[in-house]
Amino acid sequence: MSSFIGANLDQKGVSVMLWGVPFDGTSSYRAGARFAPSSIREASYSIETYSPYQDASLDEFKFCDVGNIELPIGNTEKSLGMIYDFVKENSSKLFLSIGGEHLITYPIIKALKEKNNNELVVLVFDAHTDLRNDYLGVKFSHATVMRRVLELGNISLVSIGVRAGTKEEFEYIKKLNALYSIADVEKINELTKGKTLYISVDMDVFEPGYVPGVGNPEPGGINFSDFMNFLLKLSFKNVIGVDIVEINPVYDCSNISSIFAAEVIREILIKLFIDLNN
Amino acid sequence: MSSFIGANLDQKGVSVMLWGVPFDGTSSYRAGARFAPSSIREASYSIETYSPYQDASLDEFKFCDVGNIELPIGNTEKSLGMIYDFVKENSSKLFLSIGGEHLITYPIIKALKEKNNNELVVLVFDAHTDLRNDYLGVKFSHATVMRRVLELGNISLVSIGVRAGTKEEFEYIKKLNALYSIADVEKINELTKGKTLYISVDMDVFEPGYVPGVGNPEPGGINFSDFMNFLLKLSFKNVIGVDIVEINPVYDCSNISSIFAAEVIREILIKLFIDLNN
Amino acid sequence: MSSFIGANLDQKGVSVMLWGVPFDGTSSYRAGARFAPSSIREASYSIETYSPYQDASLDEFKFCDVGNIELPIGNTEKSLGMIYDFVKENSSKLFLSIGGEHLITYPIIKALKEKNNNELVVLVFDAHTDLRNDYLGVKFSHATVMRRVLELGNISLVSIGVRAGTKEEFEYIKKLNALYSIADVEKINELTKGKTLYISVDMDVFEPGYVPGVGNPEPGGINFSDFMNFLLKLSFKNVIGVDIVEINPVYDCSNISSIFAAEVIREILIKLFIDLNN
Amino acid sequence: MSSFIGANLDQKGVSVMLWGVPFDGTSSYRAGARFAPSSIREASYSIETYSPYQDASLDEFKFCDVGNIELPIGNTEKSLGMIYDFVKENSSKLFLSIGGEHLITYPIIKALKEKNNNELVVLVFDAHTDLRNDYLGVKFSHATVMRRVLELGNISLVSIGVRAGTKEEFEYIKKLNALYSIADVEKINELTKGKTLYISVDMDVFEPGYVPGVGNPEPGGINFSDFMNFLLKLSFKNVIGVDIVEINPVYDCSNISSIFAAEVIREILIKLFIDLNN
Amino acid sequence: MSSFIGANLDQKGVSVMLWGVPFDGTSSYRAGARFAPSSIREASYSIETYSPYQDASLDEFKFCDVGNIELPIGNTEKSLGMIYDFVKENSSKLFLSIGGEHLITYPIIKALKEKNNNELVVLVFDAHTDLRNDYLGVKFSHATVMRRVLELGNISLVSIGVRAGTKEEFEYIKKLNALYSIADVEKINELTKGKTLYISVDMDVFEPGYVPGVGNPEPGGINFSDFMNFLLKLSFKNVIGVDIVEINPVYDCSNISSIFAAEVIREILIKLFIDLNN
Amino acid sequence: MSSFIGANLDQKGVSVMLWGVPFDGTSSYRAGARFAPSSIREASYSIETYSPYQDASLDEFKFCDVGNIELPIGNTEKSLGMIYDFVKENSSKLFLSIGGEHLITYPIIKALKEKNNNELVVLVFDAHTDLRNDYLGVKFSHATVMRRVLELGNISLVSIGVRAGTKEEFEYIKKLNALYSIADVEKINELTKGKTLYISVDMDVFEPGYVPGVGNPEPGGINFSDFMNFLLKLSFKNVIGVDIVEINPVYDCSNISSIFAAEVIREILIKLFIDLNN
Repeated sequence: MSSFIGANLDQKGVSVMLWGVPFDGTSSYRAGARFAPSSIREASYSIETYSPYQDASLDEFKFCDVGNIELPIGNTEKSLGMIYDFVKENSSKLFLSIGGEHLITYPIIKALKEKNNNELVVLVFDAHTDLRNDYLGVKFSHATVMRRVLELGNISLVSIGVRAGTKEEFEYIKKLNALYSIADVEKINELTKGKTLYISVDMDVFEPGYVPGVGNPEPGGINFSDFMNFLLKLSFKNVIGVDIVEINPVYDCSNISSIFAAEVIREILIKLFIDLNN
Repeated sequence: MSSFIGANLDQKGVSVMLWGVPFDGTSSYRAGARFAPSSIREASYSIETYSPYQDASLDEFKFCDVGNIELPIGNTEKSLGMIYDFVKENSSKLFLSIGGEHLITYPIIKALKEKNNNELVVLVFDAHTDLRNDYLGVKFSHATVMRRVLELGNISLVSIGVRAGTKEEFEYIKKLNALYSIADVEKINELTKGKTLYISVDMDVFEPGYVPGVGNPEPGGINFSDFMNFLLKLSFKNVIGVDIVEINPVYDCSNISSIFAAEVIREILIKLFIDLNN
Repeated sequence: MSSFIGANLDQKGVSVMLWGVPFDGTSSYRAGARFAPSSIREASYSIETYSPYQDASLDEFKFCDVGNIELPIGNTEKSLGMIYDFVKENSSKLFLSIGGEHLITYPIIKALKEKNNNELVVLVFDAHTDLRNDYLGVKFSHATVMRRVLELGNISLVSIGVRAGTKEEFEYIKKLNALYSIADVEKINELTKGKTLYISVDMDVFEPGYVPGVGNPEPGGINFSDFMNFLLKLSFKNVIGVDIVEINPVYDCSNISSIFAAEVIREILIKLFIDLNN
Repeated sequence: MSSFIGANLDQKGVSVMLWGVPFDGTSSYRAGARFAPSSIREASYSIETYSPYQDASLDEFKFCDVGNIELPIGNTEKSLGMIYDFVKENSSKLFLSIGGEHLITYPIIKALKEKNNNELVVLVFDAHTDLRNDYLGVKFSHATVMRRVLELGNISLVSIGVRAGTKEEFEYIKKLNALYSIADVEKINELTKGKTLYISVDMDVFEPGYVPGVGNPEPGGINFSDFMNFLLKLSFKNVIGVDIVEINPVYDCSNISSIFAAEVIREILIKLFIDLNN
Repeated sequence: MSSFIGANLDQKGVSVMLWGVPFDGTSSYRAGARFAPSSIREASYSIETYSPYQDASLDEFKFCDVGNIELPIGNTEKSLGMIYDFVKENSSKLFLSIGGEHLITYPIIKALKEKNNNELVVLVFDAHTDLRNDYLGVKFSHATVMRRVLELGNISLVSIGVRAGTKEEFEYIKKLNALYSIADVEKINELTKGKTLYISVDMDVFEPGYVPGVGNPEPGGINFSDFMNFLLKLSFKNVIGVDIVEINPVYDCSNISSIFAAEVIREILIKLFIDLNN
Repeated sequence: MSSFIGANLDQKGVSVMLWGVPFDGTSSYRAGARFAPSSIREASYSIETYSPYQDASLDEFKFCDVGNIELPIGNTEKSLGMIYDFVKENSSKLFLSIGGEHLITYPIIKALKEKNNNELVVLVFDAHTDLRNDYLGVKFSHATVMRRVLELGNISLVSIGVRAGTKEEFEYIKKLNALYSIADVEKINELTKGKTLYISVDMDVFEPGYVPGVGNPEPGGINFSDFMNFLLKLSFKNVIGVDIVEINPVYDCSNISSIFAAEVIREILIKLFIDLNN
């Protein structure tokens, strides 16, 4: 069970690459996202490779799972550097990154942008704005990550599911016109035309009852059906990267959170392959 | 707390019989359904005997709870044989069976069919198709049970809530025209007219957030209100047996799964009595 | 983390007062609500002080948190007396009480009524009627609390979310015309005009999947969005007290129940301040 | 699994009677001892009826298990009265009582003394002195129980394993000369000669690592081997009652505490029968 | 983390082979030993490769970890057959097998004996005799495994730590003169001279407080220091196989059981290499 | 429950100061020590202020608990700087620090040494050597902390309970002659004469069965009685600081680890006061 269900052992000629990024160094409430990649991989064996929603199976496509990157625990700067380096060095691949906390999105997008500085839409599913300028005096944190990402320039933010933040963050995100509803998929497809698209799924976007094992549970979230309705209509044509972050298996005795995340990953992978192949 | 809430101690003259079937020998992901019957009985004392949905109480009806069958652990064949024998020997009773894993449905229906080979509709609530031909080389498994049931002959399958399986299973179930929605209750009432009806509730049909303690959680399930709307309209006139399977209390620290199952059983019992008496 | 997020340390000139009432002496199924006040306070630091639903923050208002009352464990009568005394002695404050079990509502309302015997509407969110006349021979119990409250006289009951009780309790509550739906907010605003209003939120009103850590989980509950839609429209003009009861953190490994309760408290506090100030 | 392993269903002609006393109304730290009798009975099926320590089996002796007494939750006084009444009414039996918290020892000894007011030695295994005069103003509490017992008169206290209490309690117990070591079995046999003996085992006497599921864990306890060495040498000739209290299964995910208690009960029962028969 | 810490990826020229045997089909009390091999491997990364007890490190020796055998869940006979086949087919290797339940010892020893039918001493660490003739009518069970092993012929049993069984089992094991103490290492070294030796460590031999996550916890066990004193003096010269069984990680929230097992495996591996090389 | 049991609210004229240092930024295996200070304080209310071992009570002495330092999560360097600053600024106090992970010992000793550069003995209870030069490329880590401490100069290390480390670490610690047994208390008293003494208790020094909730459980540890025998004989005359680190309450459902730590702190405080006053 060392790789995600359906993954190829051999990564030659494979363009889509899963990897685990077990970083949770700035988790302010409860740490444990470091265990998510392994937990999600293991949980993936409790679901099928076939999606009845898309009538296709992971087995029909080629992707690999290169395991987890080993990070210097306790050193945020160095960890972010290593994540950035890895993406840079493998720039021919399309990454599906399994976090880890949300901060990992920053070095990944940074590396991707240096390869291709087209206008980028960052589509974020998240209960939180993550737009603080700093958090307890720290510039790079799960609570500031989208602010740092925007500073990379030439990026539009599309946020879905946001329901927590400071007054300042909400003022900021409203000024950005970045607040979207899960029903706005057509509008978002319109927006991304001619641009590249990065998708970041913070699993706390879902109602905590459905995904209790996350770093910062926040009531009022979406459900699986909302998410699937959106996903099936979203165009993945221009996607240059995806991440799934903030699962914290330590706080879920029933393990439904990792299973839910594994299913989200399966659906994203299949949609990605279908759209890329068409 | 050795019997389900409201059960008669004396089983003389009682036509409806609860029993526990603590078999989980083929659970492929996580075992523990063996503990469900005891857990559900205990949980039943945390709910009322009265149903506000049906304005009736378990106390108004007569049913007994004969406890659990003791099975030879580690021997699937012998276990299935003993379940079959028990149902055969008590053929004057209408069984409500508390599993245990889904495989127990097979020997129960087998015994019932030998008593009465009318055309039988098997109405299954389940997240999974359970229609594999074999599973890891094993013919009798929770993952193949509905395939084996259908092989008994003269049976129509009605599946509600299915959202997981292999491509082959979905092709098979579509060919059978067995996929129904929770909204199709009138259609199903029509279908069962003049036939006998067996109802099997795999508790993983519900969203894992509501019922986390099951063998194979699968996101995208139904909720209690969906289920009740269906139940209240379904005709129980021709019901010859019911089972509630796949609760796994080991993986639910909050115990909401067993409580949920106890409530489902209460509602089914009351509906059964009301329809049989009218 | 010894007080609720955003609370003032100094209670001079502060009219709204939080306190914890860690009483769970009559919990019939599983005790542990005694730990709720501390657990909810701690959980409050995982959410923001700002509400995007009301575009306002706890920081804009003045309230204090006076901690928990220390109660003589094992002596229900004395405990209820001490709760009553405390409310009496602080009668200039508007209390937001964090239980403990639902029985605490009785001594609080008793004390409030003696200060002001205007006609009182008691608006209860609860899965249970709590209207038994006695419970296992005991007059004062979480299962009888609303019956005792009504006996205080000059009180109208408004119950939302009820879905469990005995036949007698349902007959009684129907005679009272006290059953309301979460959609009836306008009707309730009408009803409370010219009267005082007390709000009691038994957290088991929510679906157990969303709030698993409660004393008596009961499937079929409301969700956060239902609750917020109601809350935002309810008039808090005449509110004389609020309580949040029945969280039991012992049975929630993911801690989503205490977080959910903390968010409910934040929203109620902000709505209260907004309505009182207008 | 409704009775302790090896118990007779029929209680006619049986002189030793197990019963469960699920009272935890005065638990000051964490409640849950109410679940101990059921949990210990269930755990008893994971051990054998045969004791290799005494080369005898429960099957060789006759005892019954009459289940749990149903108590009015939230009313300590009434609960203690009902426990007292039950023992009084069954005064021909020798009770092995499974608590519940330690306070249950008081009404049991009170009833036994009224039947037979010989000089009584109360042998207590306990980490705590339980000799407070009152606890938070309450006279009847798990923390005062031995003080109340001594007030019944004509009683000598023998305490083993004590390692927690107030300064006053330790001064008091030293004045009583009641502190004994687990090695003092001969001295205790000497002491009980010609007197009757009641044995109360508060399971927190054991090191919390071995029995984590107790109300008030206290480091520095004894182990199973210490206990068995003592037990095998203790004379049970004059025993008039035994209780096993303070197991709290809610706080033991591994369930080793209930299993440990079941084994302690098995050994006590066998020793009791052997000594009574010789 | 897909292999035990320090294991070689390449198995060419490696004579010692770890493998996982995730079979728990006959677990009568609580299943979950199927998860032990993965859990122990993962836990092995929390300990060092170096043993201060033996002043040597796993890194100095060559061994491989070939992962888990995939077994047909629900079919005991077929599973045992596959375990037997695997050992047969790899008969040039010295196996260290990570169970799984204790029954796996039978097919392993059966295969080893067919390769080399020298007189074999089977040294078993176990709280239970495992010598029933059948268990609930089943011949092959964790409770009968040593009886079946002895029937293979030309085998002497050496049991350490036994403290649970039926009267018949104890009579049987005494007749075999198979009961040894953890202090008897010299006697055992004497006994094994000129014979081959198989070592089976049922982790329930340890006190449940130290290793709570096992299938059948039994108080009164040994500790780590006892075990190490024995191990360091035992001669591994003639060892032909080792297994570590009955860890059940599902019932250990602290994970100390899998860590303990990983350390036992490290010490056994190092001792094995040292003795084989001398 | 916001301060340790028995602590003075007022810190004027109080020379001994408790504080919490919720840092776990370099925890390599499982994080959560950040929650230890709050958990230990809360657990302290389940034990008495009186020690029967020393016949004295915390109430007889004056100490304060200033709560937790708030640290910039995710920034190890800045966190260590803030811990150092706090100790420097309060240099007239004798600190008892509740971690957090073991790395916090470094900035504390650094600050203390700058105030008083007498020869310092650092007495460490720890299962691990913590003497790596770097850990995954990181210089400041819980695994390197004692190496960094020694580099501060003029320090002798006394290590008790060490049983895990790399070969190099053991060679290093042996060269330092720093390995002591729990029986060596007289030798250590001799050694510290005329020097200052700092005591660091990594709670993983205890057997994991007794203290399961630690960052890196390691079998083979000491027990409470070993520790108390040592403590009661150790001279605290020259103590300049104490820390208790590495409790991780997230991994202990029974909470016995925090209770154990609270008791260790009580005994250390009382011994400290007794020795300082004599």
